Amino acid sequence: MSPHPPIRRAEIIAVGSELLGSVRLDTNSLFVTDRLAALGISVRAKSVVGDDRDDLASIFGAALGRADLIVLTGGLGPTADDLTRDVVAGVLGLPLEEDPAIVEVIERRFARRGLRMPDVNRRQAMVPRGATVLDNPNGTAPGLLIESGPRMIALLPGPPRELQPMVEALCAGPWQERAGRERLFKASLFVTGRGESHVEEIVQPIYSRWAAADPPIETTILASPGMIELHLTLRSDDAADGLRRVQAARDELVAALGADVFGIDGRALEEIVGERLRDRGLTISAAESCTGGLFMSRLTDIPGSSAYVRAGVVVYSNEAKTSLAGVPEALIAEHGAVSEPVALALAQGIRERTGSSVGIGISGIAGPGGATPGKPVGTVAIAMAGPGDLVRTRTVSLPGGRLMVKFQAAQAALDMIRRALT
Amino acid sequence: MSPHPPIRRAEIIAVGSELLGSVRLDTNSLFVTDRLAALGISVRAKSVVGDDRDDLASIFGAALGRADLIVLTGGLGPTADDLTRDVVAGVLGLPLEEDPAIVEVIERRFARRGLRMPDVNRRQAMVPRGATVLDNPNGTAPGLLIESGPRMIALLPGPPRELQPMVEALCAGPWQERAGRERLFKASLFVTGRGESHVEEIVQPIYSRWAAADPPIETTILASPGMIELHLTLRSDDAADGLRRVQAARDELVAALGADVFGIDGRALEEIVGERLRDRGLTISAAESCTGGLFMSRLTDIPGSSAYVRAGVVVYSNEAKTSLAGVPEALIAEHGAVSEPVALALAQGIRERTGSSVGIGISGIAGPGGATPGKPVGTVAIAMAGPGDLVRTRTVSLPGGRLMVKFQAAQAALDMIRRALT
Repeated sequence: MSPHPPIRRAEIIAVGSELLGSVRLDTNSLFVTDRLAALGISVRAKSVVGDDRDDLASIFGAALGRADLIVLTGGLGPTADDLTRDVVAGVLGLPLEEDPAIVEVIERRFARRGLRMPDVNRRQAMVPRGATVLDNPNGTAPGLLIESGPRMIALLPGPPRELQPMVEALCAGPWQERAGRERLFKASLFVTGRGESHVEEIVQPIYSRWAAADPPIETTILASPGMIELHLTLRSDDAADGLRRVQAARDELVAALGADVFGIDGRALEEIVGERLRDRGLTISAAESCTGGLFMSRLTDIPGSSAYVRAGVVVYSNEAKTSLAGVPEALIAEHGAVSEPVALALAQGIRERTGSSVGIGISGIAGPGGATPGKPVGTVAIAMAGPGDLVRTRTVSLPGGRLMVKFQAAQAALDMIRRALT
Repeated sequence: MSPHPPIRRAEIIAVGSELLGSVRLDTNSLFVTDRLAALGISVRAKSVVGDDRDDLASIFGAALGRADLIVLTGGLGPTADDLTRDVVAGVLGLPLEEDPAIVEVIERRFARRGLRMPDVNRRQAMVPRGATVLDNPNGTAPGLLIESGPRMIALLPGPPRELQPMVEALCAGPWQERAGRERLFKASLFVTGRGESHVEEIVQPIYSRWAAADPPIETTILASPGMIELHLTLRSDDAADGLRRVQAARDELVAALGADVFGIDGRALEEIVGERLRDRGLTISAAESCTGGLFMSRLTDIPGSSAYVRAGVVVYSNEAKTSLAGVPEALIAEHGAVSEPVALALAQGIRERTGSSVGIGISGIAGPGGATPGKPVGTVAIAMAGPGDLVRTRTVSLPGGRLMVKFQAAQAALDMIRRALT
């Protein structure tokens, strides 16, 4: 048992000038945050700093005054730019000493590829006195864990495939031992077919009640095109009760939002739809215009989708609608290509030609060109034919640019199937 | 003219507990970084901090000691959680005063929607003494610009559509006036069909020469599946010379990398391919198996692609390969569905049936299932038929999971067209 109080407050510092541009992003902090949260440790702040000795010393020093656990990522490479080891040891007043065991491990790594270790890699064997060395099976830079009074400081390599196994090992070992008894419990649900403000209106009274509960349930609502995510978190030192409460809370939201909830476990809509099709032994084909193949591509993103996906056609031109999906020319002339009768003819045509249980037809205007009077950009007609005599048609008006219209139209088609097969 | 030295070093602080989870990300800093870079102002560090008075005061106070310009985003809303105004004024020792002009603007905003301004919104009218108020056409929270000795501090709202116009206005006005004469010049090029280490080998000697030049040209190499990006930046106080030098550098790389360079201006491969097809008056169709429609979907992501995209078929099953693209059953039996002869038959079949100038055929194993002896997951056969007598076939072995295989297979097919039409 550690004589120190539990670790509750963490900060993350990502080191590397390349992370300060607008091209490359620090994503390690998301992974670390997630794993720490599971141990009940909150990330209170995070920073990105370049390969600059003074800036890093200043930011690390300030974090030491605020946090129990500081996780530094990157800057452990062998070059003169890699300053994390030096700066952290300097701020903490610890001497750096070469660890012969690390030199040997790195030499062996090079030897396996038939190479001699360059002298510059000796930097990676320098260890602040008293630090624990963390194994790196995927690279030359070992991680380091320093205990400084009640604080823990972890130095981890920047490449995600090197960092992630080290974080897992720390979570299973020293971090878990020093974490409090409190753990974080999470649940989430995904909603489609309803606007954010409409969802807010329904869930706000429930949220308010939870926020006042003890322990409170924190809620985040996140809107993206074609979908709304609701994330619930609760802290509790009683594992069974925490899990039960957060799941009960999620179920309360599911009941309030009804059929608009498409998933409670983070799964994508195409996965849910695939499951419904497979469970019922159905097959599916689609004739797409404005989505240009995106509907089919999303369906086939799911492993095992070949069990229910028969075929698809992308019919951009009116001739292709006729030749590949059998839509009568006269129907297009009468109603226009973007219309529910044409969408339904696409669905029925592709269903018949491929002998599928379900046919989907999508015809719309993705923009920026192609709008006609009464049919602005974003107008999309969607139809579903089968299984059996089932027929659904719907016209939606979708906001946003070309890619957003494509995505939301595919989403609306997937959602039509989900609702019809519920 | 300001009596102070030019602004060179900036830091960005994003405020909001929701940005510390693993769900929502701070993306404003990328936009701000990009705009500041154009003025020659470097972002030296950036932080994310929750809605906590002490943490924010500590992080802001430390940044004041390092940077000439501090940009804070978020935390300007009307609720008790929104602390940025209070904390910044407190750290700087400036009193907050209600600005009647802001109250009026917010009241008018509510009145336009037939509402009375809630009292809580008065918080948004509090201004640190001496600060300049920045107009917010897209929301209720005005921005604030504080000049504190040689330093500038900007407080900007969190929603990107409110923040971005404010940043543009600051870049055209006060930030530009206080920036040095140095500006940043950028160029980039995209490479496909070659591995990262192979590209590194070719460009490293060129990079080294540039790094030693005066002013140096900084280079970043960024590998993602199916593509490598090379980004060049150069600082110069001579606009004509800076632009000329960075473009000459880019052209030197283009010459060294030859036909593997597909774009020099940040455009996607599907856009380049579309341009080649349109310029030559060609049309295209595709028969896809393992990419499941992704190839067509990417082609049709480009506005105006209906001018050259005829039609596509997604032929997952062998029957569909025969019925929709006319591939002889015997050919599949002889060579297997994943083979160059079948890919070519798909390309020729769809080309004939749709009367297109170019036909593309893709057949492969996206995984995780479906591997056969000699054909592991990631094996993809790609073929191009037309224009005229042109025929290309290729088999690639792609690493990664299902989605990565799909993306890279579509990328390889697009690249086959690009090279054939060069």
